[in-house]
Amino acid sequence: MTAPTFDVIAIGNAIVDVMAPAEDATIERLGLAKGGMTLVDTARAQELYDAMGPAKEISGGSAANTLAGLAALGAKCAFIGQVADDQLGEVFAHDVRAGGIAYATPMRAGDPPTGRCLIFVTPDGERTMNTFLGASQFLPPVALDETLIASAAVLYLEGYLWDPEEPRRAMRRAIDVARAAGRMVAFTASESFVIERHGDDFRDLIAEGMIDILFANEGELATLTGESDFEAGVAKVAANVPVLVATRGPHGAIAIAAGKRAEVAAEPIAKVVDTTGAGDLFAAGFLSGHVRGLPLADCLKRGAICAAEIISHYGARPEGDLKALVAARTG
Amino acid sequence: MTAPTFDVIAIGNAIVDVMAPAEDATIERLGLAKGGMTLVDTARAQELYDAMGPAKEISGGSAANTLAGLAALGAKCAFIGQVADDQLGEVFAHDVRAGGIAYATPMRAGDPPTGRCLIFVTPDGERTMNTFLGASQFLPPVALDETLIASAAVLYLEGYLWDPEEPRRAMRRAIDVARAAGRMVAFTASESFVIERHGDDFRDLIAEGMIDILFANEGELATLTGESDFEAGVAKVAANVPVLVATRGPHGAIAIAAGKRAEVAAEPIAKVVDTTGAGDLFAAGFLSGHVRGLPLADCLKRGAICAAEIISHYGARPEGDLKALVAARTG
Repeated sequence: MTAPTFDVIAIGNAIVDVMAPAEDATIERLGLAKGGMTLVDTARAQELYDAMGPAKEISGGSAANTLAGLAALGAKCAFIGQVADDQLGEVFAHDVRAGGIAYATPMRAGDPPTGRCLIFVTPDGERTMNTFLGASQFLPPVALDETLIASAAVLYLEGYLWDPEEPRRAMRRAIDVARAAGRMVAFTASESFVIERHGDDFRDLIAEGMIDILFANEGELATLTGESDFEAGVAKVAANVPVLVATRGPHGAIAIAAGKRAEVAAEPIAKVVDTTGAGDLFAAGFLSGHVRGLPLADCLKRGAICAAEIISHYGARPEGDLKALVAARTG
Repeated sequence: MTAPTFDVIAIGNAIVDVMAPAEDATIERLGLAKGGMTLVDTARAQELYDAMGPAKEISGGSAANTLAGLAALGAKCAFIGQVADDQLGEVFAHDVRAGGIAYATPMRAGDPPTGRCLIFVTPDGERTMNTFLGASQFLPPVALDETLIASAAVLYLEGYLWDPEEPRRAMRRAIDVARAAGRMVAFTASESFVIERHGDDFRDLIAEGMIDILFANEGELATLTGESDFEAGVAKVAANVPVLVATRGPHGAIAIAAGKRAEVAAEPIAKVVDTTGAGDLFAAGFLSGHVRGLPLADCLKRGAICAAEIISHYGARPEGDLKALVAARTG
């Protein structure tokens, strides 16, 4: 096993977020599941966009957000994800590369266009996401650079990509490649609806020992384990993954590794502006510590710091100097 | 003369801003004129975009920004400007319409793409703009809906549009239409370099009595009048325009109308985050009072309030509730 060239390589949806503030009444009138993520087709995306106020476009995508945080913290990162050959595809590719992340997946010609996520942000800071996957669901197995995957210490995968068929097959292949090279596989459950549809797949992966690091929030853990009690869910999964990270929003997070447990409180912030990317950046902070071999509690603390930064402003890509924030708050 | 259907109709460049923070050293290394606006071609735009950090896309365009402010303040507005039939064109059109502004200029097929402005924002909040005009410079005279123009109390024009030939002719025609209908013509000088190139045109328009309301900042006034002394410049122009509004950034603004002069200090704000759109929103606030027949000092106060809101966050489109802000601060 050779020394890894990259710290983390991620495979994820390549998405540009289209974000606008919205009142709770609008969420209700449009029939949206507040706080959730829903997949939408072209017609529904257009309907929702028409109903949306003046917006901002900010690159997103769960795993890509995590990499943006990791890269800002000094990790060497690479991304694989599919955009179309259009303006939003250029925007996504620019933002990933400008963050110092290696990204070489060729743009895909023709329809559908680059994926986007219409995000309504209510005054309480909660985000309601409506994702038009577009080109990202056509990530072909051939787009996987297997040498690249084998060269990263951690392969990071988002559950969202399990939904479309082509990327799902690509992800399974990527796991095999990473494991054959002796690398770690990290997985984020992404969203309860993904687990409802593909939970058996995820549970199989866990049971087969394919997942080294699992990220899930409270709701996802419940869906994954069928346990409504948080601790019961934790116990069920922790037995089968070397590292489990379970986040609880404002109630902090816990991690269990090699039978040891650590906890962290949420970092205090002045105002929750937009929760988009909270889980993604928690994962970034945690992994940034994990790849350096830091103790579990320190990894959690980094996760909490990064999550706090991202929810203090619009958008799921870090704005503040994460390195400086982590340095200031971890002493 | 029939009662106007719209308060303000504006003709301007249809631009999406691409904004990213940058250090002063980057501005210098890229050879940018800090604080200014420079027109760039495709190659230079690509070069600058490649050098830019992760960015956000937020609709812009000087006159469109002013309308966004006016509409937020309750004015009935319409916009004329040219986008291409592409994703950024859709973004621009959506954001204008979502702000409640009537906008019916057909998208233009083929190259060039929708105009964009690459904006580097330094830690002091100063913005350095690099504009790729794209489709906006091909606004054809036929795009002017003359009935619409004649139906608005104020025709608002941006100097930026004087630079490309087709829009320049369209603007001259629009002025004739508005004046024939007995409407007011408001004009923003936009930027010193525009005045350097088209100052004779602007001075002719003023001398011919074609401009009822002129907006200019200190630097633009100096270029327009050839007077380096602010008061000398004011005196020179005020004699020929019914309403002159001259802004001085952190030093507030003055207005002169019918021989009367009013002044306003800049509104205090916690931190200047991004000065993009300061002049545009000052104009919005001022005009919102002017179309209601408010006293000059009140119009200026509204301008200062709107300018303060826009420089307290990224982007040149209002985020705060301008109506509430104005209500709270004008008593």
